[in-house]
Amino acid sequence: MTALKNDTFLRALGRKQTDHTPVWIMRQAGRYLPEYRELRAEAGSFMALCTNPELACEVTLQPLRRFELDAAILFSDILTIPDAMGLGLNFTTGQGPSFERPLRSAKEIENLPRIDPEDDLPYVMAAVKKIRLALDGKVPLIGFSGSPWTLATYMIEGSSSKTWARAKALIFEEPALAHKLLGHLADAVTDYLNAQIRAGAQVVQIFDTWGGALPWAEYREFSLAYMQRIVDGLIRENEGRRVPVILFSKGCAHQLSAIADSGCDAAGVDWTMRLTEARALCADRIALQGNMDPAILLTNPETIRRYVKQTLDDYGSGPGHIFNLGHGITPDVPPENLGCLVDAVHEFSKG
Amino acid sequence: MTALKNDTFLRALGRKQTDHTPVWIMRQAGRYLPEYRELRAEAGSFMALCTNPELACEVTLQPLRRFELDAAILFSDILTIPDAMGLGLNFTTGQGPSFERPLRSAKEIENLPRIDPEDDLPYVMAAVKKIRLALDGKVPLIGFSGSPWTLATYMIEGSSSKTWARAKALIFEEPALAHKLLGHLADAVTDYLNAQIRAGAQVVQIFDTWGGALPWAEYREFSLAYMQRIVDGLIRENEGRRVPVILFSKGCAHQLSAIADSGCDAAGVDWTMRLTEARALCADRIALQGNMDPAILLTNPETIRRYVKQTLDDYGSGPGHIFNLGHGITPDVPPENLGCLVDAVHEFSKG
Repeated sequence: MTALKNDTFLRALGRKQTDHTPVWIMRQAGRYLPEYRELRAEAGSFMALCTNPELACEVTLQPLRRFELDAAILFSDILTIPDAMGLGLNFTTGQGPSFERPLRSAKEIENLPRIDPEDDLPYVMAAVKKIRLALDGKVPLIGFSGSPWTLATYMIEGSSSKTWARAKALIFEEPALAHKLLGHLADAVTDYLNAQIRAGAQVVQIFDTWGGALPWAEYREFSLAYMQRIVDGLIRENEGRRVPVILFSKGCAHQLSAIADSGCDAAGVDWTMRLTEARALCADRIALQGNMDPAILLTNPETIRRYVKQTLDDYGSGPGHIFNLGHGITPDVPPENLGCLVDAVHEFSKG
Repeated sequence: MTALKNDTFLRALGRKQTDHTPVWIMRQAGRYLPEYRELRAEAGSFMALCTNPELACEVTLQPLRRFELDAAILFSDILTIPDAMGLGLNFTTGQGPSFERPLRSAKEIENLPRIDPEDDLPYVMAAVKKIRLALDGKVPLIGFSGSPWTLATYMIEGSSSKTWARAKALIFEEPALAHKLLGHLADAVTDYLNAQIRAGAQVVQIFDTWGGALPWAEYREFSLAYMQRIVDGLIRENEGRRVPVILFSKGCAHQLSAIADSGCDAAGVDWTMRLTEARALCADRIALQGNMDPAILLTNPETIRRYVKQTLDDYGSGPGHIFNLGHGITPDVPPENLGCLVDAVHEFSKG
């Protein structure tokens, strides 16, 4: 493997000094880029992009050609695992993901197949290998998956939901069955992320998009506990380097102390909590990633620069901050506004 | 005025000992009740119910006939003020509220009329008076309004939104204009709640449904500060009794210390934070209202009883707890499940 030319992101994840605060952006390869929209139109669908390693590689690299980002992230979806389990993932523009065959009975949960990510999701590993080669050591590559709880919400509801009433009913009324499902998913996610690491992912992130929908105790028992189980089972060293793991439970900043106990290297933080406070909650035991409101990217350069400065100041001095948004970049952001953000992070955080 | 027969709710709001934990439920008068659906079908629309004092009174009393609730809440909407300002409030079933004429320019913000709640929202005061008479001192009556920030989000976007990008752009890019709008709304809400108090509301609650969409600093500057301004301007004593004020910012439990500084008597808490922790954050300076996940009401009596017990135990001993959900009851709840909850709260919290 080629030597890594920019290890700022990895150093920050290890809470080591860096010459600037590294920055990457959730959904940095995505619809706000005209070159992405063009390729997606040609491919015909989002899943056609995901499942074609050549196209997934191209899309992953697009934002890196425009902006001085400190990491690349695999272009894929958080729901590939249930798709590989046979639920039939679909994307309807403007509607978000849905499953053709959501889980509707205990029997369907018990009969979920065990997947082998190398055999069942070969396009993902092929994309990871291709991207690593194409990156040629420019920046590290992040692999990822949805969290067991977040996968379960979509698998049970069949699509996005405002209340997640069905998924919650499972954990409230049939906790043993919920644990069975979540354990099965945690094993699959562990295998999946390890396969990504073996294929070349240098960092992995678990997206727990719907952790914040749970009551406090159920978050710990039905979401965090399974992310911890994954962390325990991950390959933590590869190519002679630590493979850091980032947990991102949206809307769960007040749980940061428990998140830091999981053994993760870093946690994502959304914009509702000041980074000063987030840092105090986890007592500087882990690195923190975040946390600018994505809506700020819809304003203007002056405002963006002001909020970048504010976010850096909120984290304060010392290592361990990775700049990011508190959620994915939205499709209506003018690309030059992201350029302004990335440049401002580098400018303000350098010496 | 008739003497109040059940002052448990008022005593708990004042952090005084009570013989049981009082309970009321957000949206307790609503679509989950068949007798409500019947009346709404007859009236033709939600707003037809709100604007008819006789029907609003009847709907307010419906849940009290079924359940041993410790408070009544005026049947109305959080968006009556912008409607009175001329924006044209509409409800389309399943779509939530929308405005015919959302705010689209600085000029429209500057030209917003000053309303006189007695003249411009007479149906609300008439309903309050009618309900007080009909209650005949059975339980206290809660009046309410949306918070200035929450009103502003709907007034600017025109309807509900996932990202509130327009409303946020105003505070990020034109903070002076945002302050002008929010100040105007805070004055209107103050007058409106004072008119409700004069008409007979014995408690008032400010619903800040979208406070949790804001970054931490903007929550304080653009939402909490204006709720504090309202608290400062409210009639705090009437009929020889304190008129307590409850602030409910959904998704803002980590801000409880700042909320307690506002001068409110109580704060609503959603289910994402344990009441033990919420109580520690506000150092027992105010009463707390909440915080069961509404999804639990979709399960079964055994599960509901278990979670009621858990919620009471999480608050722990000592006064100052008002039992409620962490958000409104959903339309698909079987009414008998709410009965089970109310009875369990009384049973478990009695000496």
